[in-house]
Amino acid sequence: MNFLIDTVGQPKIISPLAYSNNNNDFIPNFIPDDNKIRFDTIISKDKIENSQSFEMAGPRKVIYFDPLKTKAAIVTCGGLSPGINTVINALVTELVEGYGVNSVIGFQYGFAGLVPEGGYSIVELSPELTSEWSLEAGSSLGSSRGAQDVEAMVDSLERLNINMLFAIGGDGTQRGAMEIYREVEKRNYRISIVGVPKTIDNDISYISKTFGYETAAAKASQAIEAARVEAEGAPRGVGLVKLMGRHSGAITAYASLANGNVDAVLIPESPFKLEGENGLFAWIEKQLESKDSALVVAAEGAGQELFDADNEKYDASGNKKLQNIGLLLKERITSYFQEAGVPVNLKYIDPSYIIRSTPPSPGDAVFCNRLGQNAVHAAMAGKTGLIIGLWKEDFTHIPLEAAVSRRKTVDTDGSFWGSVLQMSGQPPRFI
Amino acid sequence: MNFLIDTVGQPKIISPLAYSNNNNDFIPNFIPDDNKIRFDTIISKDKIENSQSFEMAGPRKVIYFDPLKTKAAIVTCGGLSPGINTVINALVTELVEGYGVNSVIGFQYGFAGLVPEGGYSIVELSPELTSEWSLEAGSSLGSSRGAQDVEAMVDSLERLNINMLFAIGGDGTQRGAMEIYREVEKRNYRISIVGVPKTIDNDISYISKTFGYETAAAKASQAIEAARVEAEGAPRGVGLVKLMGRHSGAITAYASLANGNVDAVLIPESPFKLEGENGLFAWIEKQLESKDSALVVAAEGAGQELFDADNEKYDASGNKKLQNIGLLLKERITSYFQEAGVPVNLKYIDPSYIIRSTPPSPGDAVFCNRLGQNAVHAAMAGKTGLIIGLWKEDFTHIPLEAAVSRRKTVDTDGSFWGSVLQMSGQPPRFI
Amino acid sequence: MNFLIDTVGQPKIISPLAYSNNNNDFIPNFIPDDNKIRFDTIISKDKIENSQSFEMAGPRKVIYFDPLKTKAAIVTCGGLSPGINTVINALVTELVEGYGVNSVIGFQYGFAGLVPEGGYSIVELSPELTSEWSLEAGSSLGSSRGAQDVEAMVDSLERLNINMLFAIGGDGTQRGAMEIYREVEKRNYRISIVGVPKTIDNDISYISKTFGYETAAAKASQAIEAARVEAEGAPRGVGLVKLMGRHSGAITAYASLANGNVDAVLIPESPFKLEGENGLFAWIEKQLESKDSALVVAAEGAGQELFDADNEKYDASGNKKLQNIGLLLKERITSYFQEAGVPVNLKYIDPSYIIRSTPPSPGDAVFCNRLGQNAVHAAMAGKTGLIIGLWKEDFTHIPLEAAVSRRKTVDTDGSFWGSVLQMSGQPPRFI
Amino acid sequence: MNFLIDTVGQPKIISPLAYSNNNNDFIPNFIPDDNKIRFDTIISKDKIENSQSFEMAGPRKVIYFDPLKTKAAIVTCGGLSPGINTVINALVTELVEGYGVNSVIGFQYGFAGLVPEGGYSIVELSPELTSEWSLEAGSSLGSSRGAQDVEAMVDSLERLNINMLFAIGGDGTQRGAMEIYREVEKRNYRISIVGVPKTIDNDISYISKTFGYETAAAKASQAIEAARVEAEGAPRGVGLVKLMGRHSGAITAYASLANGNVDAVLIPESPFKLEGENGLFAWIEKQLESKDSALVVAAEGAGQELFDADNEKYDASGNKKLQNIGLLLKERITSYFQEAGVPVNLKYIDPSYIIRSTPPSPGDAVFCNRLGQNAVHAAMAGKTGLIIGLWKEDFTHIPLEAAVSRRKTVDTDGSFWGSVLQMSGQPPRFI
Repeated sequence: MNFLIDTVGQPKIISPLAYSNNNNDFIPNFIPDDNKIRFDTIISKDKIENSQSFEMAGPRKVIYFDPLKTKAAIVTCGGLSPGINTVINALVTELVEGYGVNSVIGFQYGFAGLVPEGGYSIVELSPELTSEWSLEAGSSLGSSRGAQDVEAMVDSLERLNINMLFAIGGDGTQRGAMEIYREVEKRNYRISIVGVPKTIDNDISYISKTFGYETAAAKASQAIEAARVEAEGAPRGVGLVKLMGRHSGAITAYASLANGNVDAVLIPESPFKLEGENGLFAWIEKQLESKDSALVVAAEGAGQELFDADNEKYDASGNKKLQNIGLLLKERITSYFQEAGVPVNLKYIDPSYIIRSTPPSPGDAVFCNRLGQNAVHAAMAGKTGLIIGLWKEDFTHIPLEAAVSRRKTVDTDGSFWGSVLQMSGQPPRFI
Repeated sequence: MNFLIDTVGQPKIISPLAYSNNNNDFIPNFIPDDNKIRFDTIISKDKIENSQSFEMAGPRKVIYFDPLKTKAAIVTCGGLSPGINTVINALVTELVEGYGVNSVIGFQYGFAGLVPEGGYSIVELSPELTSEWSLEAGSSLGSSRGAQDVEAMVDSLERLNINMLFAIGGDGTQRGAMEIYREVEKRNYRISIVGVPKTIDNDISYISKTFGYETAAAKASQAIEAARVEAEGAPRGVGLVKLMGRHSGAITAYASLANGNVDAVLIPESPFKLEGENGLFAWIEKQLESKDSALVVAAEGAGQELFDADNEKYDASGNKKLQNIGLLLKERITSYFQEAGVPVNLKYIDPSYIIRSTPPSPGDAVFCNRLGQNAVHAAMAGKTGLIIGLWKEDFTHIPLEAAVSRRKTVDTDGSFWGSVLQMSGQPPRFI
Repeated sequence: MNFLIDTVGQPKIISPLAYSNNNNDFIPNFIPDDNKIRFDTIISKDKIENSQSFEMAGPRKVIYFDPLKTKAAIVTCGGLSPGINTVINALVTELVEGYGVNSVIGFQYGFAGLVPEGGYSIVELSPELTSEWSLEAGSSLGSSRGAQDVEAMVDSLERLNINMLFAIGGDGTQRGAMEIYREVEKRNYRISIVGVPKTIDNDISYISKTFGYETAAAKASQAIEAARVEAEGAPRGVGLVKLMGRHSGAITAYASLANGNVDAVLIPESPFKLEGENGLFAWIEKQLESKDSALVVAAEGAGQELFDADNEKYDASGNKKLQNIGLLLKERITSYFQEAGVPVNLKYIDPSYIIRSTPPSPGDAVFCNRLGQNAVHAAMAGKTGLIIGLWKEDFTHIPLEAAVSRRKTVDTDGSFWGSVLQMSGQPPRFI
Repeated sequence: MNFLIDTVGQPKIISPLAYSNNNNDFIPNFIPDDNKIRFDTIISKDKIENSQSFEMAGPRKVIYFDPLKTKAAIVTCGGLSPGINTVINALVTELVEGYGVNSVIGFQYGFAGLVPEGGYSIVELSPELTSEWSLEAGSSLGSSRGAQDVEAMVDSLERLNINMLFAIGGDGTQRGAMEIYREVEKRNYRISIVGVPKTIDNDISYISKTFGYETAAAKASQAIEAARVEAEGAPRGVGLVKLMGRHSGAITAYASLANGNVDAVLIPESPFKLEGENGLFAWIEKQLESKDSALVVAAEGAGQELFDADNEKYDASGNKKLQNIGLLLKERITSYFQEAGVPVNLKYIDPSYIIRSTPPSPGDAVFCNRLGQNAVHAAMAGKTGLIIGLWKEDFTHIPLEAAVSRRKTVDTDGSFWGSVLQMSGQPPRFI
C-alpha cells in the first residue's frame, strides 16, 4: 500500500520553469509524476520489508493551475518555530518569480485570520516584502492557536477567489487543514490545500525532520552548556535543564548529544524512577563522586508518571497541559541530597521560548527554502490534501490524513537513542 | 580628600618590564606613583566640584617584590561571571611572562579552598594552562559562596609562603578580602591583598563598570529579543522577561536599551504601581491598542515593594532572598486582562544563569586582560588592600574599604536612565 | 552487487554494551551483521533500480577484539574541518567508557606522526582530556598533508602493538589508509583500519554528507551576508564572494541557498561564460537595473575554463593548484562595467580559512559523535578497510576502495541544484 | 581654552521631554547648557594640566526649534559601520516620539543624495520603519564616498525646508558637513548641522570611541581565532591576519588583545623591521621553537615603510591607497623560512569587509542609541556645526572644526598599547 495523493484536477499546462528532462545538460530535471520514495531502506532478515512508498515532491512538467490566473494564500498557525518566515518567502518567491503568479496574500494570526470574527485584514505578499522577513525569527504574518469554524474559513477562501492555501503549522494546524480540504472537496471547489509541517518537536509521522527542530535543539544546547558551566563551577554542582518536548524527547536528546557532556537525558519515551539503586538520584550521586558535578536534561514531557493524575488542564489548541517536571526535579534532587547530609549546588535553567523564537540556522534556512519551493510545485501541479515531507533525504508528498494519524516519538530501540545513551553513559533505564 | 592606598613596604627593585619613561620612543610609559585620576569630570555651576581622586593603576618603575622570590595565589568566589578565566590568565601571564614570577597557585572553590576544612587541593598555574581556559565560560578554579574563618585563611597563606593574593569576586568577596587584609596587617605579614571586582550587576561603587556586566547584558538582550518575537507573533501578545539584578537595574536597563523595542523597563531603583491610570497595566493596554503587542522587562529586584514584607530568607553569602517579581507580574498581568475581558497572550522568559555562564565578549576579554595586568602591577609594587577599578576610561586603585562601603545603583536622575526612558517611551514613573 | 567489507577475523566475544535484541524494552538494539541499507530509494519507471546496498553500521552483539587487550590509535590528516575534535572525543569515549578499552593513543600531525622521521611524540588519550577538546575548532592532535612511507607506518603500528587505527581525513587520507590497510593485509596483521571521512567539500562518493560541511557552509553564508550588506549599501553595488570548493560547488550552493539573496551561484560543475547576452555580465547588469545591486558567489573551482591551461602547480598532497577565480571575476567585472561607462562598486570577500577553522555546529557535533561511535563499533567488531558513511539517514560501512574511487559533485540535473537556481532566479546556464 | 559650539539662534521654547531639574524625583535631569566635561582627567606632577573642556551633551530645558514646525533630514556617507541603522532609528525615534517632530526624511547614498545629479529620491522616515532596520547591518539609506558641490547641497536643504541635517559619517563626511555648515552660515539660514562620527577605525580626535569600532574589532577577533586554530593545527604553523586600519592600529590592537594569543601585533603607529636579530622573522622563529606555531596580526596601514614610495593611488574620497602589507608579509615570511631551510605552514586570512558589514553588538547598539538621542537634543536646542562625542564616559559636543583637525592614533606611550604588548610578549619594537 502506498500513500495516495489527491488532486484538484488534471494537469495540462506546460510548466514555465527552466527545468528539462534531459540528463547531463546542466539543467535540473522535472520530477516524473509517478516517481516514488521508498519508505523502508533497511534490508534485514529479521523483518519483512515494508513496501510502502511516498510520492516524490518536485516540479512537474505539466501543471494544473494557470499561473496568470492563480491566487495563492498563506497562513501560519500554532507556536513559533525558527524558519516560518523563510518558508513564507520561499512560497512567495517560487510562486511569483518561479511560476509568474501575480497574486499572493497572507492571512494574519493563523486560522483566526480566515474568519470574519477575527477581524484581521489581509496582507498582500511580494518577494520584495518577504525577502526582508526571510531570515527573521517568528512569523511576520502572526500566528495563533485554536480551531475556527471550517465552513466560515472555506467561505473566505471562496469569497477571495483563492486557488491554493498553504498552511504552515503543526499537528493541530494540519488537522485544521484536513478539515478545510474535506470541506473544499465537499463543495467541489478547485482549491489546493498544501501543508508545511512545523514543529520544533520533530514529532510528525513519516517525516524525517521538521523545520526549526535543529535550530531549536542547537539553541537548547546553549542552555545545556550554561548549566554545565554552572555545575562545574561550584562544589557538588548539579546542572538541571528543562527543554520543550511534550510527547517527544527529540530536542532533548539531540541537544544533549550535541553538548556531549550530559550525564542523564530524560525523555517522555522512557519512564524513570528517582529512588533506588538504579534510580536517578543514585546516578547523580555517582557522578558527583567521580567528578564533583552532574548534568541532567529533561524534556518537559518526561517523568509525567511521577505526578498524581489529578488536575488535568488543556490549552486553546486542546493540548493537555503538563505538570512541570523541571521544578519537580529541582525540588526533589535538592531535598534528597539535603536530607542525605550531602547537599548539592543545583542550578536550574528553563530557556523556554528562547529556543524557538530565534532565526533559523543556515541548515534550517536551506531546508525551509526547499520545503516552500516543493509546496508550490505540488500546489501548482494541482495536488491537494497533502503536506510536504522529507524522507531519507528526498522531499515527499504525504496525505494529510496519514500525517496527522499518529505522532512520531524517539525510538528507544533505535540507533539515535543508542548514540545518546553511549554519550551520557547512563544506564538504558533508571529503574 | 583622596583615596589612600596601603603598601606592604617600600619599593626598591627596578621593574623588569620593557616600559620606559620617555615619550615618543614607541615604548609604553611607566606610571608615576603619584598620578591620580579625577573623580569628578563634569564642571557645573550647579554643584561644588568633588575634588576626590583615585590613584592611577599601571606598572611602576620601582617595585617591591623580587619576582624570583615571589609566590602568588588566586582565588575566585561568588556567582560566575563572564571573564573570570580571562582575568586568571591575565594574572598568571603577567606574573610569569611579564615579571618572571616562578610560582603561581590557585585555590579551588573560593575561600573554602583557603581553609583546611574545605579539603580542596591547590592548583599549580602556568600560562600554558591558563591560556587554554582564557576565553572559556565559568571559573576553572571553581567558586563558592560564603565566608570562612579569617584566621584560618591567613594561616594558610603564611604556611604556603604566599606573597600576594588576588581575590576575584563581588561585594561579599571583597569584604572577605578586606578581612584577610586586616588580619595580615595585624600580623604584620608582607602579603599584598588585591581584589578584582566581579559582578555582572555592575553595582560596585567608584567603578565605571565591572567585568562580565556587558557580556551578561548582551546575552540578556537575546532573551528580550525572543520575548519581542513571541509578543509580536501572537494577537495581543505580551512579552515579559525577568533578568538578574538584585539591587541594581543596570543589566535590565542596558539590555533593554540594546534591544531598543522594550515598552517598559522596571528596575529596583524606581518603584512602580500596577493599577491606576498611570500604572503599568494601563501602559501595557496602551501599547496593545497601538501596536497589538507589548514588551516588559523587569530586574529581579524590581517591584519588591509589591510583596508583603513577611518571610525574608537569606542565602549562604547572607544576601536577602528576593520574591519572584517575574512570576508576580506574569500572574497579575494575565489575570488583570482576563478580568477586563481582553485577555492577552503572555510569554514569560527567565533566562536565569544563561546570561552569566557564557564566555566573555571580546570587549570584556580586553577589559579582563587589562584588569588582570593592572592587578599584578599593583601587587608587584607592594600595594595592598585595594581593588582595581576603571574610572573615566582609566584603571585605578581603590581601597577595599571604600569599594565595599556602599552599592552603586542606576542613577534615576542621570543621562543613562534618561536614554532608557527615551527609548522605551514609558513615563518616568508608573504611579 | 553490494559493497563487501573485510574483517580481520571472526567475532566471538560478547559485546559489553548495554544494548539488547528485544523490541519495546526501552533498550537500544544491536545491529544484525547482515543488515543492509539500500543505495537506491527512488522508484521510477524511467530507470532501472540500482540494487546495491551498504552494510549497516552500528554495535554488534558479538565482537572481535577483547577490549581489555585492545590498543587503539587515532590520526588526523589534511586540512582542518569543524568537528575533528568531536570525532576524536567520540572515538575515545566509546572505546574507553563504552567498551572498556584501556589504551588509546593519538599520533600527532597526520601520517607524519606515524613515521620516525616525523619526530613527533605520541599522545595518550583519555575521555577526560578529549572531552575538553570536543567542541573546539581545529585538531588538537595536529594535522598535516602529504603521504608517508607505508611500510614505515605499518612498522610503527606493529611496534606499538596497535590493534586498530582510526584515520580522520579526506580523499588523500583515505587513500593513505587504504595503502596501510593493504600493507597490513599483506603482512597478515590483525589491525583494523577504519576511516572517518572528513572534508568540508562534501565530495566523497556514497556518502550523503561529510562532517564539517554544514558548519563550513553556515559560516560561509555569513560572508555572503556581509557581501549582500555591502552591495546594498552602495550605489550599483556588486558583492562578490569566493568560497572553498575545488571540485565541488557544494559549500557554495548550500551557503547561497541558506542566504537566499544570491543572484548568481557559480560552481565547478556548471561551466559559464562572462560575455554575451546570456553571460554573467549581462545577468549582473539586469540585477543592477532592477534593484541597484547584485550578489555573486563563486566556488574556488568554478570557471577554471576561463584561464589558460598554462602553468599548473601542485600542493604537498598532490592536488592541482587552482587559478584564483575570485580575483579574475573581481577584475573582469570591474573593468567590464568601467568600460561600459556604468562603473560598479564591487566589494570582494574571500573568507578563506575562516569557514573551516571554527567549532562544529550543534548539528555537526551530533553527527561527529555518531560517526565516532560507529567507527568504534566497526573496529571492535573486527571490520577493516572501510570508512563510516551516512546514507539516507543511516550510518553505513563503505569499503575504502569504493569510497576513494571517484569524487562526488553537485548533480546539476538534481533537485538540490534546482532549488539553488529557483532561489537565485539565474538561468540554468550562463552561455 | 574651551571648545565653543555655534548655535542657529536663541532657544526659547520649553522642551516637551519628560525630564526635570529636581534630584531624587526618579526623573532624569535636563543638562544645564553651561555644563562642561573636563578634557584632562589625569593629575600628574610630570605635566601641566590641560584645562580644555567640552560642552556636555544632553537634553536642554529650553530649545530653539518648535517641534511641530521642524523638518529634519539624515544622510549616511562613507564606508559601512555596524550601527548606522541604530543611529538612524535613534534619531527618528527621538525626533518623532521624543520631541513630536512630524517630518523626518532620509537622503539616499550619501551626499550624492543631496544633489539633483545623484538622481536619488527622498525617503520618508518614521519610527515604525526605522525600528525594523535598527539592528540590521549596513545602511538602509545607502551610502557613498566622495564630495559633492556644497552650494547645490545647501540649495537642496533650503528647497526642502530642512531645519536640521544629521550627517553620519567619518572624517571625509564631517569635512563635508563642515563645508555645508559654513555655507549655511554664509547664507544665514537657520539650519542645524550635527554630525555623528562613524569610523570603525576609532581615529577621530577628542572622541573616546566611535560607534562600530568595538563590533568590528570583535568580529576581527574571530578571524584571529581562525588563524590561531590553523597555526596550531599544522607543524610549524604561522597564522597571519590583515585587518582594516589605514592610519590607526586600534582595531588590530583591540582584536589581538581580545584574542589573547597573538605573538606579534603590527600597527601603523610603530614602524618595524623584518630582518635582523630584533626583527619580525627572528621573533616568529622564536615562537616556532618554543611552541611550534606563531600568530601575527597586522593592520593594513602597518609597515608601509617597507614598500617603495613609487606609485601612490587615491580613492574616490581622496584617501591614499595603501600597499598590501598582508600579501607582502605572506610572501616574505614564506620565502624567508623556505630559504632558511625550515619552511613554515603559513595560513593567511584577510576578513576584509566581513568585520564591518555586521549588525552592531549590544554594546554598540546602546552607544548608537545614545549618540542618536544626543544628536537630536543638540539640534533641537539650536546647536550647529558640531559632532556628538563620547569623552570619559560622558557625551559631548565637539565643533566640527576641532574634530576634523587631526586624526587620533594609538598612543604607543600609553597604557592600552602597553597592555597589548604585555599580552603578546613581543618586544616594544622590532628593530
